[in-house]
Amino acid sequence: MTNTKESPQTHFRSRLDIPNGQVDLSHGGGGRAMAQLIEDLFRHHLDNPLLRQGNDQALFGPVRGRLVMSTDGHVISPLFFHGGNIGSLAVHGTINDVAMAGARPLYLAAGFILEEGLPLADLERIVIAMAEASRAAGVPIVTGDTKVVERGKADGCFITTTGVGEVPEGIHISGELAAPGDAVLVSGSLGDHGIAILSRRENLGFGTDLQSDSAALHGLVADMIAAVPDIHCLRDPTRGGMAATLNELAAQSGVGMLIREAAIPLKPEVRGACELLGLDPLHIANEGKLIAICPAERAATLLAAMRAHPLGQESAIIGEVTQDPQRLIELETPFGGRRLLDWLSGEQLPRIC
Amino acid sequence: MTNTKESPQTHFRSRLDIPNGQVDLSHGGGGRAMAQLIEDLFRHHLDNPLLRQGNDQALFGPVRGRLVMSTDGHVISPLFFHGGNIGSLAVHGTINDVAMAGARPLYLAAGFILEEGLPLADLERIVIAMAEASRAAGVPIVTGDTKVVERGKADGCFITTTGVGEVPEGIHISGELAAPGDAVLVSGSLGDHGIAILSRRENLGFGTDLQSDSAALHGLVADMIAAVPDIHCLRDPTRGGMAATLNELAAQSGVGMLIREAAIPLKPEVRGACELLGLDPLHIANEGKLIAICPAERAATLLAAMRAHPLGQESAIIGEVTQDPQRLIELETPFGGRRLLDWLSGEQLPRIC
Repeated sequence: MTNTKESPQTHFRSRLDIPNGQVDLSHGGGGRAMAQLIEDLFRHHLDNPLLRQGNDQALFGPVRGRLVMSTDGHVISPLFFHGGNIGSLAVHGTINDVAMAGARPLYLAAGFILEEGLPLADLERIVIAMAEASRAAGVPIVTGDTKVVERGKADGCFITTTGVGEVPEGIHISGELAAPGDAVLVSGSLGDHGIAILSRRENLGFGTDLQSDSAALHGLVADMIAAVPDIHCLRDPTRGGMAATLNELAAQSGVGMLIREAAIPLKPEVRGACELLGLDPLHIANEGKLIAICPAERAATLLAAMRAHPLGQESAIIGEVTQDPQRLIELETPFGGRRLLDWLSGEQLPRIC
Repeated sequence: MTNTKESPQTHFRSRLDIPNGQVDLSHGGGGRAMAQLIEDLFRHHLDNPLLRQGNDQALFGPVRGRLVMSTDGHVISPLFFHGGNIGSLAVHGTINDVAMAGARPLYLAAGFILEEGLPLADLERIVIAMAEASRAAGVPIVTGDTKVVERGKADGCFITTTGVGEVPEGIHISGELAAPGDAVLVSGSLGDHGIAILSRRENLGFGTDLQSDSAALHGLVADMIAAVPDIHCLRDPTRGGMAATLNELAAQSGVGMLIREAAIPLKPEVRGACELLGLDPLHIANEGKLIAICPAERAATLLAAMRAHPLGQESAIIGEVTQDPQRLIELETPFGGRRLLDWLSGEQLPRIC
């Protein structure tokens, strides 16, 4: 058994060398190197009273309403991109999944899987981005975990975040509630995140000013349910894009949809990049947009509430829910024709989130 | 934009080829391949009413008491070992972290990061083990997420699980509550998990019958707090072993401890393997043991409750909390000497959980 004269009080006599250091296996070993990484880097930046409890779990006080829980792994490559990095994305992504139940996000947990050799300076940038995103959203990271794997057994940094939130009384938003006649809305331009990442990844000449739309949407959602409490469905079109989201909702609700292609907001850079590369912007991932479905007679009120929020200024009504036992998403082209909007069989853009 | 005659209803006309198939990037792409993986593999085995909601989050609720939340990434290598696999470990690990607050674990979320090329048959074995562990524990997996990274960018399968639980009224268990004079107890033999993994990993000749102790401890904890509601601290000695756990608790509570080495339960195979390899069993990870600290006058009652539970039959009182501003863990050797039990500086056994 270990016998050393060194006192446990001397563990952190020297601070972690963030500018020059790298993650090594000892940072995941449960010993003093891990304790120092947690203290000097994670707790330092993410500090809040619940995280400060210092146990293997966070304890918080009773929540009166119904709860939601959601988890999301983040494996985006590259780790840093226009409009954010994997840290801010991991905070926004899970806040949004919680918010899509109409819930107020309360707490986040973060699980890091780090590759040996990751510069500590990169990890710090990531953790700072998480801290900033978490504070801006008002949703603290209350507990976490760090694992380290050998060089070549992961790709820099993966982050799995989990969120819990509280659903306000009287709110019932779920994927199976779309009904024929309902209006379909989107909160802004599609494809920004995916094309920004692709541009960064491939070092393509286009869209260098295009930023990811990565953002926390719970404030927008709160305004929306305040205006229209009987929203039927909310979902953020991430992987697989709007095509996957609409097909999922149609399958869950047992309905079809008719979407007017000309009504879908698209940035010219995204349209141009997609034409160049033969990509469909409706299959491209978004990280700061949502699809909403509500009774037709409430659509104008909902649209006004969405446009009044900074993250929903370009919101649009893009179509309607139809009665269709085949659950097809039909797209009305600008020329008046119709075609099916299917979801992808294969993979268009791996590791987009 | 996509135009195909194929109906979305035909997505799953053929079932996933689990015996011969492999994970590929499309399984993480948000399209129909991912939907099929979720349907045929994850939902098929993990099925429960909350998971069946089919949204990006699970809705449950209200919970009357205080809540705890804990998250834990699992990167163990190898994925399969004596006594379990990464799936059962990921369920047990997070249930235990929730239970160590004295809480009743309620729900789990699971985030998978899969490497392209992982045999679907391996993934199914892992998911079946999760399902069995989750059912046996009575804690459903209510929401999840799957990401896939390219070959060589992960190591088969990583699983991050997050749990929420409810703390019974009147229970206050936390790492800073150890007080001088308190008794220190352990629920059974130490080092079984780490040595079982090491033996499997290195193909060593020893300990081939030794199983990981991976187990869900919430039932044991429930019996313990029923017998002794004023337990001060509970913690499971995973990475870093008992040495790390005792040092953490001492640091949090601002106390020292005196531990009698002869009182610590150790299996002969573990003792032998450690002697052979120059390892300290008190630094080796456990996945089905806990350390408890309670007022000295309640220790006999607590010990009896622990020994009455199948997972605590070998429980022992191993020492006491001392007044020590230096927060040292002293070990009384079988020969009457004393030495310090420090936590490790480096890494002894990477990827043990």
